[in-house]
Amino acid sequence: MPYFDAASAAPLHPVARQALLASLDEGWADPARLYREGRRARLLLDAAREAAAEAVGCRPDELVFTPSGTRALHDGIAGALAGRRRTGRHLVVSAVEHSAVLHSAAALEAAGGSFTEVAVDRGGRVAPGAYAAALRPDTALAALQSANHEVGTVQPVAEAAEECRAAGVPLLVDAAQSLAWGPVEAGWSLLTASAHKWGGPAGVGLLAVRKGVRFAPQGPADERESGRSPGFPDLPAIVAAAASLRAVRQEAATEGARLRALVARIRERVPALVPDVEVVGDPARRLPHLVTFSCLYVDGETLLHALDRAGFSVSSGSSCTSSTLAPSHVLQAMGVLSEGNVRVSLPAGTAEEDVERFLDVLPGVVASVRRQLGAPAAPEPVSRTASELVIDSLGKRCPIPVIELAKSIGDVPVGGLVTVLSDDEAARLDIPAWCGMREQEYVGERPAERGTAYVVRRRT
Amino acid sequence: MPYFDAASAAPLHPVARQALLASLDEGWADPARLYREGRRARLLLDAAREAAAEAVGCRPDELVFTPSGTRALHDGIAGALAGRRRTGRHLVVSAVEHSAVLHSAAALEAAGGSFTEVAVDRGGRVAPGAYAAALRPDTALAALQSANHEVGTVQPVAEAAEECRAAGVPLLVDAAQSLAWGPVEAGWSLLTASAHKWGGPAGVGLLAVRKGVRFAPQGPADERESGRSPGFPDLPAIVAAAASLRAVRQEAATEGARLRALVARIRERVPALVPDVEVVGDPARRLPHLVTFSCLYVDGETLLHALDRAGFSVSSGSSCTSSTLAPSHVLQAMGVLSEGNVRVSLPAGTAEEDVERFLDVLPGVVASVRRQLGAPAAPEPVSRTASELVIDSLGKRCPIPVIELAKSIGDVPVGGLVTVLSDDEAARLDIPAWCGMREQEYVGERPAERGTAYVVRRRT
Repeated sequence: MPYFDAASAAPLHPVARQALLASLDEGWADPARLYREGRRARLLLDAAREAAAEAVGCRPDELVFTPSGTRALHDGIAGALAGRRRTGRHLVVSAVEHSAVLHSAAALEAAGGSFTEVAVDRGGRVAPGAYAAALRPDTALAALQSANHEVGTVQPVAEAAEECRAAGVPLLVDAAQSLAWGPVEAGWSLLTASAHKWGGPAGVGLLAVRKGVRFAPQGPADERESGRSPGFPDLPAIVAAAASLRAVRQEAATEGARLRALVARIRERVPALVPDVEVVGDPARRLPHLVTFSCLYVDGETLLHALDRAGFSVSSGSSCTSSTLAPSHVLQAMGVLSEGNVRVSLPAGTAEEDVERFLDVLPGVVASVRRQLGAPAAPEPVSRTASELVIDSLGKRCPIPVIELAKSIGDVPVGGLVTVLSDDEAARLDIPAWCGMREQEYVGERPAERGTAYVVRRRT
Repeated sequence: MPYFDAASAAPLHPVARQALLASLDEGWADPARLYREGRRARLLLDAAREAAAEAVGCRPDELVFTPSGTRALHDGIAGALAGRRRTGRHLVVSAVEHSAVLHSAAALEAAGGSFTEVAVDRGGRVAPGAYAAALRPDTALAALQSANHEVGTVQPVAEAAEECRAAGVPLLVDAAQSLAWGPVEAGWSLLTASAHKWGGPAGVGLLAVRKGVRFAPQGPADERESGRSPGFPDLPAIVAAAASLRAVRQEAATEGARLRALVARIRERVPALVPDVEVVGDPARRLPHLVTFSCLYVDGETLLHALDRAGFSVSSGSSCTSSTLAPSHVLQAMGVLSEGNVRVSLPAGTAEEDVERFLDVLPGVVASVRRQLGAPAAPEPVSRTASELVIDSLGKRCPIPVIELAKSIGDVPVGGLVTVLSDDEAARLDIPAWCGMREQEYVGERPAERGTAYVVRRRT
């Protein structure tokens, strides 16, 4: 049963499993104790720290283990901000960071600080100079992911780091998605990662803080991990994390090339196999194993369930699959279609046949979901009954507003206007995206009595 | 090789190991995902929560898993304080709480709040009425351990809870040391625990918050664990923690009685076998598996190393074994001897022979450490050369100041004064304790040009 959601959590790497089992008997005692069980635990911890530091590209004493990537981000950002409180309380982040970064930014704002979100292009990438432009005299910290977790776009870390360095601002790099594939480009001041993304166990994050970077751990004091990560360390998991990071790095070049070819196949063939699909993310500067596309007239949750029934485990940034009813902030920031969004992230070892089978199955699954939703068959019917039309899609969830727009556009003459009333947040993204895909003109939006009015001019 | 430091970390229980292995293959995926691997993970998580909640004595939706007992305390205290910020920013704790609680109190104070430490008796126990007396109109939270981690004294949780209830203040109970032996007495509002203390894996803490208790999680938002514990959950560890808690509970009555008898043997025989030993902690109301004693004229670190060489892994609250150079705050609060402090905490399954062997070995080890330090053989020499004497022990670490006092007391006549100058924090505890053990009069202390002057009047 192919599992294509490695970007959420990778299955345990065999080396991780082996190391975990081996250290269950040696690694349960307190490494701070002086007796033999404690000394053995300390040796394991030290060795794991050295191995992980080597893979990260830092000194062992710059690296601490945290209970998760999320905690590494929360504690790393809080500590770096506090370390430079005298400079100011402003934080710069990209608009497509992991929610742990954006929630840290929101927490800073709630506590009286402020933050700036750096915009990305349609491929999800930060522009050169964008960080330089966002830095202010009171900026305490900037944060940028090494690669995006939803669309796979690799960020210009070295350039952003240089811009930050020139301004004397430390840069924190969230390397959660890329660390398996190689070290982060030079120039970072703080780095975070998460073991279960590379096939290590859950329960282990990394937080590296370069010597000389001001850092003031927040929250109650604790002696563990240089005072930067409170709580008794989960040693068997830490040992497994370090061992598996080393293992995936040894396989990275070969496996990366293999998965990159499989992903290229998906990127190329999905738009050919499935009508009205937008493949999103930077086409060239990307992670080897991850591809994301959105399907017009498709409801993400229904599509995921249908793919699950067909035996494929994938993820989605569509609004319908989250509890917030808003499409993924990443797709929003990119301004791309969010309907029927599918993220395929291949774990190491993914078989070519499984990818082929996915490509076989996908067109039928999408067509069936579209049929269920009553999506219009392309091309849309060409009739004309009025020069202007208002479609009331209030209370209807994505992708229904877009489907109703598509079905009605033919009812106005070329040059005529269709106004869609919708209170679904995804419409803001998906109606302009539909216009782009259908070569219709998106005029704009205005507040309506209920929800928002989206205005489209028929062009073809 | 007998390991007698279960109170730091218990070796992995066989059931924990089994459950961990079994769930490595089923429990790596994200339980928030809709596909089959995610659903399987969710089932495991739900089942573990139900089992742990049953052992704790709460509803499953009142319980979240945290990455450690320390994080449960940090996050639980911060959330409970924030939930009642309108009432005030005052916290009540006992003086013998775990450092994670005391550090939380210090963090509160640093942020502008305040706290009161409730004193304990010489047995380490909070007095009835002491919590009631410490509560104020602006008290947001009170915290009390179920049992002390260094001396094993069981606290009057039900009484303190009733005092808090009457004042409308929630009580947080740190059950880290006792949860293996049974549920906490009724009346608590929040409860924390740590799996590696009961033979579960590291990486799992428990935080239970009763329905109706105001709780506002602090730090950046996160959807996991009802918003109360950020980060991807370590499911195999959580499953192992829950399974082993159930297992140790089933064994608790039998194993508790067996260990209680072994501990009683140590409590009774150590003072008979080793001269000048003080067994500390409440003699009756205590954990079944833990006993602590202090040895006059002995340096804790040397004693621990000697016991380690003899094959015994034990812990110590003596100043010489910690990085802070201050004796354990627990021994300080109890006002008992801290020199040569040894905590023996027996893991489940400890063999009677190992305890017997410990009792065989201990007298020789202590005698040898005392010889190395030049400790006086009892009784101290009786000569008299001056009516008053000043001993300069500045720069000398415990137990040297006490040893020098003991060697010199005979140099003044009965009724004469000996003043010890010392800059070792432990002297404040150990000189009065020595006076008590030797029936000499402890007159008091005063600041000296360097360090502190401790004045003793010879009585015998």
